[in-house]
Amino acid sequence: MAKRNGTSSDFRVIGGRPIRHDGFDKVTGAAKFGADYHLPGMLHGKVLRSPHAHARIRAIRVDKAMALPGVKAIVTGADFPEVEDAQVPIGELMGNPRHLSLNVMARGKVLYDGHPVAAVAATSPHIAEEALRLIEVEYEVLPPVMDVDTAMKPDAPILLPELRTVTLASRNDPGQTQNPDQQTNVAAHGQLKRGDVEAGFKQADFIVEHTYRTATVHQGYIEPQNALAVSSADGHTTVYCSSQGQFQVRTLLSYILKEPVGKFKVIPAEIGGGFGGKTTIYLEPVAVMLARKTARPVKMVMNRAEVLRATGPSSGTRIDVKMGATRDGKITAAKFWMAYESGAFPGSPFMAGAMTTSAPYNIPNLLIDTYDVVVNKPKVAAYRAPGAPHAAFACESVIDELAERCGIDPIDFRILNGSREGTPQPAGPPFKRIGLIECCEAIKNSEHYRTPLVGPNRGRGVAAGFWFNGGAQSSAAVNFHSDGTASVVTGSVDIGGSRAAMAMIAAEVLGLDVNDVRPIVADTDSIGYTDVTGGSRVTVATGLAVYNAAQDVVRQLKERAAMLLERKPEEIDFELGTFKVRGNGVPPMTLKQLAARLPRTGGPVSGRSSLNAGHVGAVGNAFAVSCIDLEVDPDTGKVQILRCTVAQDVGRALHPSYVEGQLQGGTVQGLGWALNEEYVYDRNGMMRNAALLDYRMPTCLDLPMIDTIMVEVPNPGHPLGIRGVGEVSIVPVPAAVANAIYRATGVRLRELPLSPPRVLKAILSNEGERKPAAAG
Amino acid sequence: MAKRNGTSSDFRVIGGRPIRHDGFDKVTGAAKFGADYHLPGMLHGKVLRSPHAHARIRAIRVDKAMALPGVKAIVTGADFPEVEDAQVPIGELMGNPRHLSLNVMARGKVLYDGHPVAAVAATSPHIAEEALRLIEVEYEVLPPVMDVDTAMKPDAPILLPELRTVTLASRNDPGQTQNPDQQTNVAAHGQLKRGDVEAGFKQADFIVEHTYRTATVHQGYIEPQNALAVSSADGHTTVYCSSQGQFQVRTLLSYILKEPVGKFKVIPAEIGGGFGGKTTIYLEPVAVMLARKTARPVKMVMNRAEVLRATGPSSGTRIDVKMGATRDGKITAAKFWMAYESGAFPGSPFMAGAMTTSAPYNIPNLLIDTYDVVVNKPKVAAYRAPGAPHAAFACESVIDELAERCGIDPIDFRILNGSREGTPQPAGPPFKRIGLIECCEAIKNSEHYRTPLVGPNRGRGVAAGFWFNGGAQSSAAVNFHSDGTASVVTGSVDIGGSRAAMAMIAAEVLGLDVNDVRPIVADTDSIGYTDVTGGSRVTVATGLAVYNAAQDVVRQLKERAAMLLERKPEEIDFELGTFKVRGNGVPPMTLKQLAARLPRTGGPVSGRSSLNAGHVGAVGNAFAVSCIDLEVDPDTGKVQILRCTVAQDVGRALHPSYVEGQLQGGTVQGLGWALNEEYVYDRNGMMRNAALLDYRMPTCLDLPMIDTIMVEVPNPGHPLGIRGVGEVSIVPVPAAVANAIYRATGVRLRELPLSPPRVLKAILSNEGERKPAAAG
Repeated sequence: MAKRNGTSSDFRVIGGRPIRHDGFDKVTGAAKFGADYHLPGMLHGKVLRSPHAHARIRAIRVDKAMALPGVKAIVTGADFPEVEDAQVPIGELMGNPRHLSLNVMARGKVLYDGHPVAAVAATSPHIAEEALRLIEVEYEVLPPVMDVDTAMKPDAPILLPELRTVTLASRNDPGQTQNPDQQTNVAAHGQLKRGDVEAGFKQADFIVEHTYRTATVHQGYIEPQNALAVSSADGHTTVYCSSQGQFQVRTLLSYILKEPVGKFKVIPAEIGGGFGGKTTIYLEPVAVMLARKTARPVKMVMNRAEVLRATGPSSGTRIDVKMGATRDGKITAAKFWMAYESGAFPGSPFMAGAMTTSAPYNIPNLLIDTYDVVVNKPKVAAYRAPGAPHAAFACESVIDELAERCGIDPIDFRILNGSREGTPQPAGPPFKRIGLIECCEAIKNSEHYRTPLVGPNRGRGVAAGFWFNGGAQSSAAVNFHSDGTASVVTGSVDIGGSRAAMAMIAAEVLGLDVNDVRPIVADTDSIGYTDVTGGSRVTVATGLAVYNAAQDVVRQLKERAAMLLERKPEEIDFELGTFKVRGNGVPPMTLKQLAARLPRTGGPVSGRSSLNAGHVGAVGNAFAVSCIDLEVDPDTGKVQILRCTVAQDVGRALHPSYVEGQLQGGTVQGLGWALNEEYVYDRNGMMRNAALLDYRMPTCLDLPMIDTIMVEVPNPGHPLGIRGVGEVSIVPVPAAVANAIYRATGVRLRELPLSPPRVLKAILSNEGERKPAAAG
Repeated sequence: MAKRNGTSSDFRVIGGRPIRHDGFDKVTGAAKFGADYHLPGMLHGKVLRSPHAHARIRAIRVDKAMALPGVKAIVTGADFPEVEDAQVPIGELMGNPRHLSLNVMARGKVLYDGHPVAAVAATSPHIAEEALRLIEVEYEVLPPVMDVDTAMKPDAPILLPELRTVTLASRNDPGQTQNPDQQTNVAAHGQLKRGDVEAGFKQADFIVEHTYRTATVHQGYIEPQNALAVSSADGHTTVYCSSQGQFQVRTLLSYILKEPVGKFKVIPAEIGGGFGGKTTIYLEPVAVMLARKTARPVKMVMNRAEVLRATGPSSGTRIDVKMGATRDGKITAAKFWMAYESGAFPGSPFMAGAMTTSAPYNIPNLLIDTYDVVVNKPKVAAYRAPGAPHAAFACESVIDELAERCGIDPIDFRILNGSREGTPQPAGPPFKRIGLIECCEAIKNSEHYRTPLVGPNRGRGVAAGFWFNGGAQSSAAVNFHSDGTASVVTGSVDIGGSRAAMAMIAAEVLGLDVNDVRPIVADTDSIGYTDVTGGSRVTVATGLAVYNAAQDVVRQLKERAAMLLERKPEEIDFELGTFKVRGNGVPPMTLKQLAARLPRTGGPVSGRSSLNAGHVGAVGNAFAVSCIDLEVDPDTGKVQILRCTVAQDVGRALHPSYVEGQLQGGTVQGLGWALNEEYVYDRNGMMRNAALLDYRMPTCLDLPMIDTIMVEVPNPGHPLGIRGVGEVSIVPVPAAVANAIYRATGVRLRELPLSPPRVLKAILSNEGERKPAAAG
């Protein structure tokens, strides 16, 4: 076993690139995703959805639908229990059970195109769909509110009559109500403050100030949401579903259905992508309701249009930035005003946006006001580094402009002002050892950055991004087998290769071949509580639990070896799978030899660990710097990405191939977000592009190979030096693209996506400041 | 939490009778037994079986069968790897991988009617059956050997040419080869010896000496054997099956297929009875072979005839007993000669028979010779207290006869000579605190025994029985949920209500309602190694692991409570679900209150334990005494059971209803064994009654209510005083019936079953000694 935080060469398994343990089953089709489950007697459920963005429900009549042969049950909002209207803990964050419940099934009002109004269970999906058409709903249509500017107007139509603005100081603060008599669409206002921002601006030689906007975008996971519910006669309910966290589904079911978590068992199916979008629930409580009404298993699967219309995308935002710097390039002050759309119910990542936006920089005077605003769109969900790409788009565009005004290379400007160990975070303690500067230098020294970009209409942009990385709760068990192999049981759904990662950590500690460790993802009854697979937390937190559980095994095995070798446990060394008596001629005993002798020396050996990684200081922050070359077609406004390199501080690349994959995947999503992706709503608030032909995600034809530079600045809080790597690479991309387009065209665009019509219009109308187009 | 070994009133949950946690799903049909599993693309496998009891296989031709449309693969013995021909550990016992493999699929020779010769996988079970008829097998028929007398003759036909007799000293001794040149059907000879048996007989005033025989009988579980195998492209194999131990199946697959246990994952289905018969495997390796050949899931399910012909029944035996006693009733010496049929391969419970037969009595001079003998019948498997009912039938018949010769009441005779704390066991250490005497007294003082039995042709018999009870390895995990409920994960298949038992133990320790604990039976990767559900070991051993794992949770919760109450953990008391600071005005904190605060005080809490219950001295022996009234129809020989009471030392009745059920169930099986059950073979060695209409098990119409007396002599080695209760009640029954028939008819019968033809023949021919028939 390697030294704590040692270099990669100290490791035997870590840093290798074994085939993922779930790979064969996924490639051959044997892996079971949510929609693959079938149970005898199973019914199929379908959801009737609102055809209005904002309307009062006058009446729902289901008689005709119930009379259709094959229809077994219908549920509406009236079937759901009244639940708490307050902020409660959901995993590491807070949420409102009443809002969760109303989002799952509308009552009183519908608040977005696609909002569920009723659901049918029938003997076939086709009968269920036919029955939806027989449900009669009377609506009183209300004016829709589709952006923060409209929503924040004093005379704006009100979505939630009971909503009051709260002020809060941190992400988990339930907040203080500001004005109990004032109806509003502003759910919350947060403020971060440091120094004296007006004094800071006075010290500045240059000040840049602009407004930025980002569009509503979707995570675009391949697999639609699904749920299969089985209700037992004893009041217990089992749910099979794809999610980023079986325990999160259990918690949410418990809140929405008002029953203790012990009444639910959630079995995690394989998951075809989530990116944050599967940290909440939609179909699960509906399937449970239908299963209870019918006493039969009920399966529900969304189609793509339902996914786009009615599952959580990321916020559309408006962000105003004012930032000043001295002539020699030191930032003196920054002021942000941010408003995040939360969709139909409160809960956007408006605080995360505020806390991440300027985090890469040491800014002595800082004032950030940030708002959570309801609009008539689907309730937003987490999306890879939630809140950060929007904020970085604004901040990193301004940084680029300031660097230019100072006449400093944009990378050097970032190194000059960049956060390092000890720099205070915008909110929270000073940074521990972090790798932003190393990432900037990696880009600066890269062959990419050192190679000039030549040719007309071409430009290179850079930007930096920050993400906290999550810690939270994880549990792990390691079961040691009689042949000297082991299984590792965790509660972490495997999205990006975490089975392999957990097996590698256990194999490293136990001195085993990685294929001698079987990683298991267990249901909510079979392993201790574990938070969602999200927030780049699994390899760090669940990985630490696995590390500790494997060490627990080693400690017990040492006791057995000591018994057999007739020594004290503390006299036994364990190295590379062998137990040795320290400084002694006693022949060593291998792990496999010892394994065979366990039955008769006290029985089997298993290890366990449960922890909150945040509490034990195991989380290390993440930074990434992107460098993007592109060419703009001046006739169409189409942007072609020519070359793209991302440098990221990955702490320790546990499995470099999968780390690279995360860096590339985040970059690709950032490119989609930058260039094409947006929800297009008509003036009635109806989504007009709810299909992947019209909601334009990047394909491999749109992309060059994404080059990655894995910067390894070990996380000092983690025994293996691991940092989360899954999210931060998305953060800088939209800004890097915008900065590159400016270099290519001389036009600064400040609204996403940077789609051909918008780019063309900007070029043609000379919108924004202009500079002669130049490469590099 | 109650005092160690306290009285039942010290407990809050233990001693209650909650509905079993698996009850609703089993009653409503939702529980999944082995045959209920279906996977996409699944094939169906069927086994071609030998039509001869003993034959050489000359050739197997499968071409025609393979050509049948729908047939996907055929396996024969040639497909199986050559494996070790030696005694290896299998759970707590020893076994021979080569013999296991040959029993699963014959090579070279077939050794019993029903021995597997080939297997087919096809798209439907019907096509597979049709294909079996197209497989051509050439046999050279050999003379069958159907009982121990024939098998032990010097010139007997030899079943296994390589077999040599070994001598051994204990159940787990691999043995010493006696004569390396001598072919034989006697696999092993064991001897137990104490004192000087000839000198002992000289002290005796009365000597009784007879030969006893028992028939081959089957456990008669409701659910036939089944297996569903799924082979992954990465070389791992998953098997779903009903068994008494998923880890045992894994171990046996590993030996037979010559791959490490880590290559197999065995998922336990619900089990419809086992009684020892499902501690070994038949279809599993065949299904795996077929799944690998076809790259598709393969399911195999036996029919009833296959179960009877080709799964392990219990041994037919011959047991000679000579026993002497003084005029005042003290036993001076006993000599046993026992031969147990093992079926086609070695491995009968011949040592267990020797070690249990006279264990209820303190016999100063003892000599037991016991033999393991192969015959052309299916390889025997464990059956409830394996080896003991046969041995007790012989011993307890002799005891009854000696008591009569001494003129002492049969219960008083047993009390006079009965084993108690400190009495030496026939092999092994002196007994710890045991409850035989208490059981005898319970019967003696029962309303049943005190009520005279009146009427012609009626008789009352009593007998005692002993069973070791098993310890072995178990693992458990307790996962504590955020609502203050918990799940308990074990590797013990639930046959007789062990889910409820495990939940009760955890609930007792944690101060929870039993319905707030969810018991989970996990697969071989998801929990630590756990030996079979058998040997009356689960409530003791897995129960102790659950007890320890729950205590592990309490210890961790005390640390959290101490943190929140600002005290040291050792200052915190935990009682009835509440944490209190000792001798202090600090308000107590309930378990549910603490549960809600875990996420932010260090994360979730889980406990674990793995142990070998035998090594920690947790096993307590079991004794039972049966009292049976019956009436013999002198015209037909039919025996009607009139009344039956069983007293058993149950240590601590954890769930009295399920304990009673075990006492009743064992008694019923003993009555079937006593009165009707036997394998009927023709002179070619073909089984003629391979169906439940012809193999006559008792039905409710044959039985009175079985009265139970639960004697609670707490097991001093177990923190809850628990003893295994599952097996011993079967042991005394055949002898008690024979003793009662003697009282009813004056005829002593010495061969089981005591079926109408045999009883009638005995009455009519005055076979055996006669006494005037008298009631009571």
